[in-house]
Amino acid sequence: MQNKQWLINGNPRGRALALTDFLEAQAALQTLRPNEARVQVEMLAFDPAMKGQLENVSGYASGNDVGNLMPGRGLGEVVESNDASLPVGSKVIGRLGWQEYATVTTQDVEVVPDDDLLSARLGPLGVTGLTAYFGLLRVGKPEPGDTLLVSGAAGAVGSVTGQLGKIMGCRTVGIAGGQAKCDWLVDEVGYDAAIDYKNDSVKARLKELAPQGINVFFDNVGGVALNDALGRIARHARVVICGGISRYEQETLPPGPTNYFNIVFRQATMEGFLLSGYEREHQQAIERLTDWIRGGQIKYKEDVQQGFENIPSTLLRLFSGKNFGKQLLRL
Amino acid sequence: MQNKQWLINGNPRGRALALTDFLEAQAALQTLRPNEARVQVEMLAFDPAMKGQLENVSGYASGNDVGNLMPGRGLGEVVESNDASLPVGSKVIGRLGWQEYATVTTQDVEVVPDDDLLSARLGPLGVTGLTAYFGLLRVGKPEPGDTLLVSGAAGAVGSVTGQLGKIMGCRTVGIAGGQAKCDWLVDEVGYDAAIDYKNDSVKARLKELAPQGINVFFDNVGGVALNDALGRIARHARVVICGGISRYEQETLPPGPTNYFNIVFRQATMEGFLLSGYEREHQQAIERLTDWIRGGQIKYKEDVQQGFENIPSTLLRLFSGKNFGKQLLRL
Repeated sequence: MQNKQWLINGNPRGRALALTDFLEAQAALQTLRPNEARVQVEMLAFDPAMKGQLENVSGYASGNDVGNLMPGRGLGEVVESNDASLPVGSKVIGRLGWQEYATVTTQDVEVVPDDDLLSARLGPLGVTGLTAYFGLLRVGKPEPGDTLLVSGAAGAVGSVTGQLGKIMGCRTVGIAGGQAKCDWLVDEVGYDAAIDYKNDSVKARLKELAPQGINVFFDNVGGVALNDALGRIARHARVVICGGISRYEQETLPPGPTNYFNIVFRQATMEGFLLSGYEREHQQAIERLTDWIRGGQIKYKEDVQQGFENIPSTLLRLFSGKNFGKQLLRL
Repeated sequence: MQNKQWLINGNPRGRALALTDFLEAQAALQTLRPNEARVQVEMLAFDPAMKGQLENVSGYASGNDVGNLMPGRGLGEVVESNDASLPVGSKVIGRLGWQEYATVTTQDVEVVPDDDLLSARLGPLGVTGLTAYFGLLRVGKPEPGDTLLVSGAAGAVGSVTGQLGKIMGCRTVGIAGGQAKCDWLVDEVGYDAAIDYKNDSVKARLKELAPQGINVFFDNVGGVALNDALGRIARHARVVICGGISRYEQETLPPGPTNYFNIVFRQATMEGFLLSGYEREHQQAIERLTDWIRGGQIKYKEDVQQGFENIPSTLLRLFSGKNFGKQLLRL
């Protein structure tokens, strides 16, 4: 039996990601060894950090070389197993890769209940939710009454971040591109206000919406939004640098924020966030996020594309702002 | 009797400080009111933040309007007094301003011993030393074995910072302009290494001197040095933004550091430092700094100019890198 895969075919450092960075291939499925299980991949999850991982930045990601299987988190069903803890028919989540069948051991995947929150475990109950949770709570340190600004607010991380901010008692302002996303943020997600960076002056709107200054800025975007936000930070503000999607596709790195020096005048902090290091607390965070989702305090949206052949183009959607909700693909 | 003063004559925001930003004036000395004392100003201290204060940046400094006396810390002797706690003949330090005689109350000044450390109380035992102490220890959080990089290392704050780093068990690397300053840093101050930004490639030297990366960067300069340092930070690095002298004189604010995003890859922190907020701990810090100076672990250098008429030009020395040691002026 054949296994279709997408292999890495280029390193996109210093340029936009392209469809030609991936190469379709086929490999015969091998006989399972002891303790291995075969997983039929049912759904893949996408996030902007995947481009950075492909760039093999030293100290951040490595081993993503041309010719290797494209890595990626997904969920699937065990269809063949040599390990009793991975029984046939069980649903698993983990780094399955861009392929139809993944060969895994218990170290690679986690068995999850086959319930209505299955795909949420690739989003608000997965890396996405944990990033929002630890990034906001541990680095942003929001307090009740704080004004929380989130860029990329309609993205998977940003929409959870805003809702966590409301749970913490913050006033929340989101920046997103286009009226539809902004309406969704205010009407469905529960942001107190939204700024449409495509049509509004971010600077003018921030002045209006954060008259006392921004206490916590959770940045997924970088660029102009970061600079404008730094221009309006409050004393002792916390700026969480979680992502910088405006930078990921540029050929030469754009300059940093001119207003960075405001962190001195405001005695503020700008801290980079990566999820690694919080492993021991994942379980507790996921239990809390589950309660909030079940209780309706956290809502989420999924953008589900279809088909093995569309995997690379689905990743590219993230960099053009096309996705609306957590980007997924069903095989 | 007349009191000669330098008044504020211009707001230097968005341009270099000029001699014409100050205007010489004379005012008749008034009769002292109850609880007031008259101080003859003997020495003034200068630091780069004085330009920022003149710019009346909102939330940082205000009230420094054209026509007002130019503020500034200094030391002097009480020559007339209506307050028993400020006896005639005692030495005091405080915000005396750019003038020959200051009228003060106990809230404005502190009586200090007339000993060999008198002028040090305008430097390593004053705001300068406290800035190095709290900026490095509380924001930089150095650990034994860390590599500490300091820009503006031959400046008043930078030279104390490097020595505090040695006391903490760090490997210290300083950046300064010119061979003389670099020699002084290594031979006298005790830095492990110095980089001459005027003649060396900072980037190449950092690669050589911080092969494991920079754990703490104490930045007084901004600009290229900040960007190069961010390019070499270690995991969990702390970047203390204490000053940005390369920016203070520019007409349009230069871009921020392109490499700021490295704080994400390295899970690092960039925090702005101002001295305000540590008041309750000043006394303890000064006791410790005094012990270290007496014990020879902290050495300092003073650059003492002379004469009332040279006060404005002495401040300007800081922005051309002319000063070598704490910039002072004896009236």
